[in-house]
Amino acid sequence: MKKIEKKIKRLKKLKPELFQKDFLLTWERSEDDLKAVLLVAEILKDMRDNNISSKIFDSGLSVSQFRDNSTRTRFSFASASNMLGMEIQDLDESKSQIAHGETVRETANMISFLSDYIGIRDDMYLGEGNKYMREVGKALDDGFKNGVLPKRPGIVNLQCDIDHPTQAMADLQHLIDYFGNLENLKGKKIAVSWAYSPSYGKPLSVPQGIIGLMTRFGMDVTLAYPKGYNLIPEVEELAKKQADESGGSFKIVDSMEESFKDADIIYPKSWAPFHVMEKRTVLLQNKDSEGLKKLEQEALAENANFKNWTVDDEKVKLTKDGKALYMHPLPADISGLSCEEGEVTDKVFEKYRIDTYKEAGHKPYIIASMMFVNKFKNPAKALNKILKRNKKRFGI
Amino acid sequence: MKKIEKKIKRLKKLKPELFQKDFLLTWERSEDDLKAVLLVAEILKDMRDNNISSKIFDSGLSVSQFRDNSTRTRFSFASASNMLGMEIQDLDESKSQIAHGETVRETANMISFLSDYIGIRDDMYLGEGNKYMREVGKALDDGFKNGVLPKRPGIVNLQCDIDHPTQAMADLQHLIDYFGNLENLKGKKIAVSWAYSPSYGKPLSVPQGIIGLMTRFGMDVTLAYPKGYNLIPEVEELAKKQADESGGSFKIVDSMEESFKDADIIYPKSWAPFHVMEKRTVLLQNKDSEGLKKLEQEALAENANFKNWTVDDEKVKLTKDGKALYMHPLPADISGLSCEEGEVTDKVFEKYRIDTYKEAGHKPYIIASMMFVNKFKNPAKALNKILKRNKKRFGI
Amino acid sequence: MKKIEKKIKRLKKLKPELFQKDFLLTWERSEDDLKAVLLVAEILKDMRDNNISSKIFDSGLSVSQFRDNSTRTRFSFASASNMLGMEIQDLDESKSQIAHGETVRETANMISFLSDYIGIRDDMYLGEGNKYMREVGKALDDGFKNGVLPKRPGIVNLQCDIDHPTQAMADLQHLIDYFGNLENLKGKKIAVSWAYSPSYGKPLSVPQGIIGLMTRFGMDVTLAYPKGYNLIPEVEELAKKQADESGGSFKIVDSMEESFKDADIIYPKSWAPFHVMEKRTVLLQNKDSEGLKKLEQEALAENANFKNWTVDDEKVKLTKDGKALYMHPLPADISGLSCEEGEVTDKVFEKYRIDTYKEAGHKPYIIASMMFVNKFKNPAKALNKILKRNKKRFGI
Repeated sequence: MKKIEKKIKRLKKLKPELFQKDFLLTWERSEDDLKAVLLVAEILKDMRDNNISSKIFDSGLSVSQFRDNSTRTRFSFASASNMLGMEIQDLDESKSQIAHGETVRETANMISFLSDYIGIRDDMYLGEGNKYMREVGKALDDGFKNGVLPKRPGIVNLQCDIDHPTQAMADLQHLIDYFGNLENLKGKKIAVSWAYSPSYGKPLSVPQGIIGLMTRFGMDVTLAYPKGYNLIPEVEELAKKQADESGGSFKIVDSMEESFKDADIIYPKSWAPFHVMEKRTVLLQNKDSEGLKKLEQEALAENANFKNWTVDDEKVKLTKDGKALYMHPLPADISGLSCEEGEVTDKVFEKYRIDTYKEAGHKPYIIASMMFVNKFKNPAKALNKILKRNKKRFGI
Repeated sequence: MKKIEKKIKRLKKLKPELFQKDFLLTWERSEDDLKAVLLVAEILKDMRDNNISSKIFDSGLSVSQFRDNSTRTRFSFASASNMLGMEIQDLDESKSQIAHGETVRETANMISFLSDYIGIRDDMYLGEGNKYMREVGKALDDGFKNGVLPKRPGIVNLQCDIDHPTQAMADLQHLIDYFGNLENLKGKKIAVSWAYSPSYGKPLSVPQGIIGLMTRFGMDVTLAYPKGYNLIPEVEELAKKQADESGGSFKIVDSMEESFKDADIIYPKSWAPFHVMEKRTVLLQNKDSEGLKKLEQEALAENANFKNWTVDDEKVKLTKDGKALYMHPLPADISGLSCEEGEVTDKVFEKYRIDTYKEAGHKPYIIASMMFVNKFKNPAKALNKILKRNKKRFGI
Repeated sequence: MKKIEKKIKRLKKLKPELFQKDFLLTWERSEDDLKAVLLVAEILKDMRDNNISSKIFDSGLSVSQFRDNSTRTRFSFASASNMLGMEIQDLDESKSQIAHGETVRETANMISFLSDYIGIRDDMYLGEGNKYMREVGKALDDGFKNGVLPKRPGIVNLQCDIDHPTQAMADLQHLIDYFGNLENLKGKKIAVSWAYSPSYGKPLSVPQGIIGLMTRFGMDVTLAYPKGYNLIPEVEELAKKQADESGGSFKIVDSMEESFKDADIIYPKSWAPFHVMEKRTVLLQNKDSEGLKKLEQEALAENANFKNWTVDDEKVKLTKDGKALYMHPLPADISGLSCEEGEVTDKVFEKYRIDTYKEAGHKPYIIASMMFVNKFKNPAKALNKILKRNKKRFGI
């Protein structure tokens, strides 16, 4: 309890401006915003670990819309919503009338009459996902302004084409836990590297989210990928700019080994090259299944040239004292376990397996925190009231 | 709060007989029943707008069964159930063992051991949907009588082949809001008109629900459709009879323009002709996909003869002072937006878009109200207790 | 209330060891364990019938994973979870990333960060379902031990390849209700008989669950099946051993008629022969659809030799005073109702229909009870506190 109270005191000193704001890109948010989300997430976790209920809704819906498969984000969103007292209602487009000419503007209002929060995953189409979220947001603004909606539900980006903020923030929380505090991350070297995978078409949003967030805290960020596997150019530029401002650094190299040298943290993950995703987006929109098959073959053949971009014992030895922290958003393509040849060897993964699970474990609290700060102008005060209320989560 | 108390006083004067009754057709219910549902819906909405929790269940399931796609009714039912404290449990027939020879009688009991409410949408087959709901109802009566069920769950019709009572009642609430009160609807002219759509097979239950409800309150109801597009004959007759009794009028014309003349309200909506739905029902039951394709082609060709049955500026000018209220259950087929040529032009729809959203926004409260009056012999007393309890929906 | 207090007193005398234990096979549990589950289930039912809320969670997730279709178990699990205060979150493998190389170990942790209970149905593959549940259990142990999970969620077997403990325990509860108490079951004769069905591939877990449970309470259990339709040999041996220990008896005969003679209870149900299920498991795993079709034809042809293994008036006459209690887990294959020729005639089924519904009605409470005893070291004390708290389930 003392620990929680101390954290609430720290929270009081921040000036977040997240009240009634959507959370769509970490780089749209101030440093205080990010710190507040991290701190509230920690406090909510501490509360739950101490069997303190953080329910703030007596009833209410939290809508999820997954335009791509998901296990951990789905459960994280459900857990967060439930913890705060909202019931999940999934917008399953296959069971709705959306196909029948319903506009985004309309659907956004129709699902929101009694809803408090909307979480959206839309990461398949370059140039589309984030745009879609903003379109939903505008429709909600419009509905609220015109008296259609009694409240303007908040939106949280559960992964788009540009960023994966709940993942990146959970990863940052993991680093804070691992290295003690946010200050300690200054000067730490993180290698965000492309890795070989026997599948293609993986979104760019995870590596983009990581370089877009970690460059803000004085870290030395190295992005590594084979020629042609670049990310969205604007995000790479943003990372450079942010690193300069925060007193860190950002560079791009074309060798996994080079990026790993003296790294404190390695984040190896497969993604599709930007130019492939651009082609794929057009083909998907045209439902050109022949074209998609052809693109897949080409892309997989291209990938196969870089099978040596895999994390093994040898490569880990290159890192700081041979023991950098390995990170992954999961599921990883693990050679000899989930595929023949993949992003990481079974042996390396096993060594860091529990760490990656803990990394994932922050996500429910990060999401709950984003919801929380959206609903209270003064989150510290609200958390203090929860503490005083002292309601048990479990028990009679 | 004064406003709510005043409404509760008005509610006290009514003598509804809805306690433990299913809500299947509006015309089975007395005028006091309908007034009570409307008033309780308003009160529940006022409460929510004032952050007063109207939870009456500490736990409990509310079962939904959607035999057709749905967005707004699905979310409305979920919102209503959640607001009163019940968790939604969807009976998804594709994931159940119903296909394996389970009878309706049996399933109805199996899903009801701890359930308080069942909402059913079954609007695909003429002669089937409403019958199915009654079959479920009988099975629940039987289960309750024989000690299988501790309570007899209530049933709400979320759209059948005959009526769409939650839609029609939400529409009526919208008209009350728009024109000030129920009394003011007397003598108002409403045009319920068929409209062109590039799709076919749309249920008849919306127009039937509207003419079956609005004729009870002294309105002048004009139903318009091209020759051959009639509704279920018994419902047309019922509308006539009710109009006579309520001091309103009911007539059928074969021109959208004629129906729009001097109309206070226009309700243009596509539907399949009765005789097509009859054929379609047989073909669907026989799984005759060839026959269905042929019928679709014929029906679409027939529809195409009436492309001029679309709402545009010109037609709106025919209405009372050129500014009748446009209504639609959504989604509408909007020319140039969701289809090439449809029920209404983009321009007309845009003008009334916010109105149609507000119209839809009444549905969650209408459903919650139907659930509420099913559970309390004296709903006014129950609402007063909720008011005194004064529990916040959101907050600490 | 007196009745409930008396039952809690009886519960106090038992020494169950179910705290933080999974419920996977009834024969792994002591007699006191089983008696405690039955008694807590009764108490929870009495409470609900008396409008007493038994909510013990303010928030929390209860995860269901159905690898086979289900209606009644799905609703039973949902009801039980909701009654105790948990929200259902379904792990739908088709919407998750599990296919993409995620391991069981990983998924188990990813869905459990804020979950309190996991219910699993996995009954399609011989040798797989129960194994899978234990694999999940081990992963949860590992996650909890390593600080990934704040709590170790409990697991309940909602049907595997070996046992169907929630069904068998609900059936036992039904027998206790019918015959007055557990003691009265001593010496009662129960016939568990194979019955003809026009489908094949039905799991063995129901008959196995019944013979594995009823032989522990001094009952005379007769298992009947045509030659070649044996169950898992180890379970048949276990039944024999348990019957010897409990002072009951267990024998296998190859005639439905013989098993019915003087039976107090008949439990006729179709299942696939063990050797067919063994072949089927291999074919399913190899996705050999040709082989599966061939096996189905062979199996159905084999089944057709035993169409006379159906329950009709004549066979019921053979039972004790011609009025043995008929039991079935539902849905039954009812001749002339759900199929042409099946497990039981329409006439016999109709006579016992309400009994079979009541039988099914125990399942939600059995599941809730299994969850309850997993969470409290001293369930009697917890139930007393609930009684004193005296919170209404429904009402204001």
